[in-house]
Amino acid sequence: MMSELLVFVNDEFIPASKASLLVGDLAIQRGYGIFDFCKALHHTPIFLDEHLHRFAHSAGRLRLPIRPKKEIALVIHQLINKNNIPHSGIKLTLTGGYSPDGYTLAQPNLVITQTPLHPPTPDTFEKGIRLVTYPHIRQMPDVKTIDYLMAIWLQPYIREKNADDVLYHRDGLMSECPRSNFFIVTKDDTVVTPDENILKGVIRGKVLELAQQIGTIEERSVSLEDVRNAREAFITSTTKHIIPVLQIDGRPVGDGFPGAVSRHLRTQLDKLVASVTP
Amino acid sequence: MMSELLVFVNDEFIPASKASLLVGDLAIQRGYGIFDFCKALHHTPIFLDEHLHRFAHSAGRLRLPIRPKKEIALVIHQLINKNNIPHSGIKLTLTGGYSPDGYTLAQPNLVITQTPLHPPTPDTFEKGIRLVTYPHIRQMPDVKTIDYLMAIWLQPYIREKNADDVLYHRDGLMSECPRSNFFIVTKDDTVVTPDENILKGVIRGKVLELAQQIGTIEERSVSLEDVRNAREAFITSTTKHIIPVLQIDGRPVGDGFPGAVSRHLRTQLDKLVASVTP
Repeated sequence: MMSELLVFVNDEFIPASKASLLVGDLAIQRGYGIFDFCKALHHTPIFLDEHLHRFAHSAGRLRLPIRPKKEIALVIHQLINKNNIPHSGIKLTLTGGYSPDGYTLAQPNLVITQTPLHPPTPDTFEKGIRLVTYPHIRQMPDVKTIDYLMAIWLQPYIREKNADDVLYHRDGLMSECPRSNFFIVTKDDTVVTPDENILKGVIRGKVLELAQQIGTIEERSVSLEDVRNAREAFITSTTKHIIPVLQIDGRPVGDGFPGAVSRHLRTQLDKLVASVTP
Repeated sequence: MMSELLVFVNDEFIPASKASLLVGDLAIQRGYGIFDFCKALHHTPIFLDEHLHRFAHSAGRLRLPIRPKKEIALVIHQLINKNNIPHSGIKLTLTGGYSPDGYTLAQPNLVITQTPLHPPTPDTFEKGIRLVTYPHIRQMPDVKTIDYLMAIWLQPYIREKNADDVLYHRDGLMSECPRSNFFIVTKDDTVVTPDENILKGVIRGKVLELAQQIGTIEERSVSLEDVRNAREAFITSTTKHIIPVLQIDGRPVGDGFPGAVSRHLRTQLDKLVASVTP
């Protein structure tokens, strides 16, 4: 029933098969735009305030005027009611708009889509993922821009290296995966995650809070050496929550199996998400 | 009469006010796309083969399947006939298409637009431009991607620095402006242009050929020191042909006026363009 889903474009709810932007939009012309992505469970957006806050931050950094958070939240709730998908991903996109000269910023276009999304399963956690490192830092990494040029371009490379996703680094300092944050757990059970050249994920923040309740956390640079000495590694994202990283560049992380700290944090995160889900 | 212009989208000529892409396109979702831009004078595309060749190169590098050059050329000629604008800019855009998951490449969308464009005037040449340097290299600089995030974001910075455009560099080695190539003329009249981290412009190639006929050319790295010692500097582009760079970071280049070599090359380039214009 994908074709019947509604998409919000500026001021209207439009069937997905007709939801479009004119080709003069600066996202199409110049790749200029931001987005955010939150999850809804049982028709309820999870951590919506945090996502709207970050969306506003991204908009500000790219000098795109944005509507009040309350107004966007209202549209999201209307969209959820209209589409009636219990578990979904909600993507907010704000573009540079219809520029008269294809270069100057114009009135932004706001697009809000909703697509079915299934919560991560225990199996997803046990299976874990394999990463391959690649030297790249996103432009303006603190901003959730639509720039995924390298991420998409690297897909064949990732497959060729028998990996599931890419871990960006610069000069051997790890930063992030294209759509998730990266953590290691050291031999003394400290939970460490990079603090520079990254997008600060909403789940990253929640996991740091949870980790702090049970032990030590550090937000600092993570070298390849740190990764090799780590007992565990995992990634966090809105879609995936916590997934153990079992291999990096073909070498096992720790013993190559999901670790106790990752597992504990996942349980705690599941509880936290459940506590804000009706 | 802008609203009556036709735009080619995939297989149809559509009025510009209705020419659109669905929001699921990977240009909007992920900034994934390429383009090329050529000029038509008296209804004739100039250096079309070179532009189509580069468009195909960009498409290949981004793994986007592309139609045969002859087919695209035919569409361009049809568009020129239908719109009937004698002097125009023709922009070809190829995007990642309507991805089922918003990440995997799909069948590309091809968009061809035509907009009125006036040839550069002698006044534009005499006025010259002022550049401000900025540390940045485009991702995949040999590819004409739609990624102009930094270029657009830097507009207020450029104005604040009393400049007209930005000159990218990395570690003090100049590369290019967002929409033009950069040249210097040394004190011994050698024409020098960077050879790395740049998009090889069609006009850049023509100017190198013309410069070789009258003297020495060098394609090599250009340091800030080289710029400070240069007698002249200029930029080249399809839209602007040759424009002298009179200031960089607020300091005059050479004597701060359009130079003899720039002027000579401009005359030769005008002749070359006239020779391929009916």
